[in-house]
Amino acid sequence: MTHRIPLGWSFNGVPCGIRGASLELGRLDVAVWLSDRPAVAAGVFTQNLVFAAPVALCRKRLPQGQGTPFRAVVASSGNANACTGERGFADALEMTHLVEKTLGLEPGSALVASTGVIGRFLPMEEVRSGIQKACTTLGQDSTHLDNASRAIMTTDTVPKVSSRTVRLADGATVVLLGMAKGAAMIAPDMATMLGFLFTDAPLSGTQAIEILSTNAKRTFNCLSIDGHTSTNDTVLLLANGAARPVQHLEGSDLEVFAQAVHDVSAELAGMIASDAEGATKLVYVEVFGTKTEGDARIIARAIANSTLVKTAIYGADPNWGRIVSAAGYAGVPFDASKLSLWMDGHLLYEESSPAPFDPVAMSDHMRTNKIIVFRLQLAEGDKGCRLATCDLTPEYVRLNSDYTT
Amino acid sequence: MTHRIPLGWSFNGVPCGIRGASLELGRLDVAVWLSDRPAVAAGVFTQNLVFAAPVALCRKRLPQGQGTPFRAVVASSGNANACTGERGFADALEMTHLVEKTLGLEPGSALVASTGVIGRFLPMEEVRSGIQKACTTLGQDSTHLDNASRAIMTTDTVPKVSSRTVRLADGATVVLLGMAKGAAMIAPDMATMLGFLFTDAPLSGTQAIEILSTNAKRTFNCLSIDGHTSTNDTVLLLANGAARPVQHLEGSDLEVFAQAVHDVSAELAGMIASDAEGATKLVYVEVFGTKTEGDARIIARAIANSTLVKTAIYGADPNWGRIVSAAGYAGVPFDASKLSLWMDGHLLYEESSPAPFDPVAMSDHMRTNKIIVFRLQLAEGDKGCRLATCDLTPEYVRLNSDYTT
Repeated sequence: MTHRIPLGWSFNGVPCGIRGASLELGRLDVAVWLSDRPAVAAGVFTQNLVFAAPVALCRKRLPQGQGTPFRAVVASSGNANACTGERGFADALEMTHLVEKTLGLEPGSALVASTGVIGRFLPMEEVRSGIQKACTTLGQDSTHLDNASRAIMTTDTVPKVSSRTVRLADGATVVLLGMAKGAAMIAPDMATMLGFLFTDAPLSGTQAIEILSTNAKRTFNCLSIDGHTSTNDTVLLLANGAARPVQHLEGSDLEVFAQAVHDVSAELAGMIASDAEGATKLVYVEVFGTKTEGDARIIARAIANSTLVKTAIYGADPNWGRIVSAAGYAGVPFDASKLSLWMDGHLLYEESSPAPFDPVAMSDHMRTNKIIVFRLQLAEGDKGCRLATCDLTPEYVRLNSDYTT
Repeated sequence: MTHRIPLGWSFNGVPCGIRGASLELGRLDVAVWLSDRPAVAAGVFTQNLVFAAPVALCRKRLPQGQGTPFRAVVASSGNANACTGERGFADALEMTHLVEKTLGLEPGSALVASTGVIGRFLPMEEVRSGIQKACTTLGQDSTHLDNASRAIMTTDTVPKVSSRTVRLADGATVVLLGMAKGAAMIAPDMATMLGFLFTDAPLSGTQAIEILSTNAKRTFNCLSIDGHTSTNDTVLLLANGAARPVQHLEGSDLEVFAQAVHDVSAELAGMIASDAEGATKLVYVEVFGTKTEGDARIIARAIANSTLVKTAIYGADPNWGRIVSAAGYAGVPFDASKLSLWMDGHLLYEESSPAPFDPVAMSDHMRTNKIIVFRLQLAEGDKGCRLATCDLTPEYVRLNSDYTT
C-alpha cells in the first residue's frame, strides 16, 4: 500500500546496534523525521508516575501544547531509557542536540521518544552514529517511510502505517501520515506504544493539542493488551502547514481533519491489537449505558485486563461469568440487576439471569472467528466505549518469561 | 496434624453430585457445621457489585455484625450460585431452610456459602439430598473435620485447616479452628476464597465483627493470585462461647484471641497462595514507606497483578523495571525519584537509578528459591503491607482456557 507523504516532511530509519547482540546488528533502531519549516506540535504521554527520560524531555518542551516551532523528531528502539535517573535525561537531551546540530536547527526544536528494555543506560556511542547516519540520509519516498516505521519496532511483527488525504471546503487537500509501534507493554518489556502523526495541514497549537487529546482518548487509549502501562508511551502530532498558506483550519475543514486524525489513530490502534504478542484473537469489548465515556472505559479495561477472561477467550470457552464478574469489581457503581451481555450478537446474560444458549455452538463460533465482540449493556446512562484487546496465550507467557537474561 | 475441636461444634462433608460428570460423582461437595448452642456470627464478603445469591443472603442475615443467634453454616462446591437472579436467591434460601428443618433449628439461624462455576442454576435435587445426608452424619473427630474441609475444595490440591488453642488470663483455654479453600479466582472459574473460623470463645457481636474485619484486611485481603475478585468471597467467624460461661472476652484475653484470629487467617491465606493454580513460586510483595496501609496495598496489588511481573518471576528473570513501572501506574501518588527496590535483600534500584548487579547470579537465585520477597521502599510515610501472590505460568493458561465447555 502506498501512502501520500505530507508536504515538507522527510525521514529515515537506520541500524546502529542499540540491542548489542550480533544477531541484532543489522536491525533498524534509530528514526528521524524532519520538517522543512517550523511545525506546531502536540503530545500525549504515559500517565505512569515512573516515566522515561524522553517523556520528561518532551513534556518540558511541549508545555500545554503551546506551539513552539518544532522541526524534528528522533526515536530509538531496543532501550527505553527509563528508570535511568539523571544520566538518562542527559542522554535524551544529547539525542535532540545531535539532531539539531546535524540538521542545523534551532536548539530545542527536536522531540525524542524511545522504546525497549527498562533500566539500562543507552549505548550512546552507537546512538550518536545512528543519529548522524539517519540525519544525513533523509528522504521522502516509500523506502524511507518503510525504514522509519521499522526503526521504531520492537517485538512488532509488522510495521504500522496509516494515512489519509483530507479534502478541504475550497477543494485543496492536506495529508495526514501516521505510524506506530508496539502493543502497550505486551512485548517482552519492549514496552510502549509510540505513535507519530505528521501533516502538512496548518494547525494552531491549541487546535493540535485539542484534536490529539480528544482522539487519542478514543483510539490509542482504548487499547489494552495486558493492562501494564508503559513508562514510555508517547503520541505526537506535528503540523507544518506546508499545504496551505494559512495559520489554522476552521469550521468544517477542522472537523474533517479531526475525523482523519481519529481514523488514522483508530487504524493504528487496531493494527497494534492485531499484532499483540502471542495473541490469536482480536477482541473488542464494548460497554454501553454508562453515565460517562470514562466510566465505560474503566469497566472495559477491567474486563480486558482479566487473565481469566483472556484465557477463556484463548480456549474458545464462552465463560461469560468471568466478564460479568470483572465488570463488577471495576470500581464504577452500577445496578447489577440491569446488566446484560452479548457475544457477537448472541445474548448470554439478561438483566442478571443467564440466557439459555448452546455452549458447544458458542465455543465453535469462538474457535472459528478471529475477531470477537463482547457487548455489555448497563442502565446508568447513554455513554459508552469500544476497547480493543486480545487473548492470553501460553506463547505470551513464554515470550515474557525470559527477556532480560 | 491433629487439631483441637472447639467445644460444641460438629461437622461433616458429603458427596451429592453437584458437578454432574460421572467422574466427579464421588467428590465431596456439601459441608455442614453445627453449634450445639447459639453462636455470635460475623462475616466479610466480596466487594464485587456482582455478588452471588449466598452472599446476598448472608449479608441480609448479618446486618452490621449484629449477633442474631446462629447455629449452623452450610457450604457447597462445584457451582457458585452466582449470576442466577431470583431463582438463585430462592435456592440459597432453601439450602438454609433445609439445614434448619433437618436439624430442628430456629428459622434464620443458618448461614450459607457456595463456590464453583458462575451462571448456572444449582442442581437442587442433588443439593437437597446432600444437605440431608450431611446433617444426619455430623461428628467431632478428625475424619469429619477432614470431610468438611475437603467438601469446600474446588481446584485446591490440598485441604486447608489451621487452629490455635488460646490460653486466657485465668488459665482457661478457648479453641479457634479455621478452614479455607481456593485462591481468589485463580482456579478455572472455580472462583472464590471461602474461609470459616469456628470458636468456643465467648464474643459479643461487636467484638466478632471488629476482630474479623481488622484481621481479614491484613491476611485474606492481602492475597492476590490473578486480581480477579470473585462474586462469592466469604469469610465467617462464629463464636458459641461453649468454653466459657461469660458473654465476651476482655482486655488481654481479647488481645490474645484477636492475635490467634490473625495467625490462623494468615496461615490459611499463605496456604492458598502456595496452592495457587499452575504456580511454581510463592511471592511476597512488601511495600513500605506509604502514608497509609491502604496505599501500600493498592501498590502491592498493582505489582502482584501485572502479568509482565508474574511471567518474569516464572522465567527467573530479574526484570525489575516491570515492578517499578507497575508501582507507577497503581494510582497512588508518590515521589518516583525516591523509589528503591530489593529482591531478597539484594538492591536492584536505588532512588530512581539502576543499582549494579549480576543478572545471571540473580536469575540463578530466582530459579533455585521457591519463595521470593520483593521489597519496594517509598518515602511518603511509615506505613506498609506484605501481600502474598504467585507467578503466572503456561499451566495457569492451560487450566483456565477451557473450563465450562
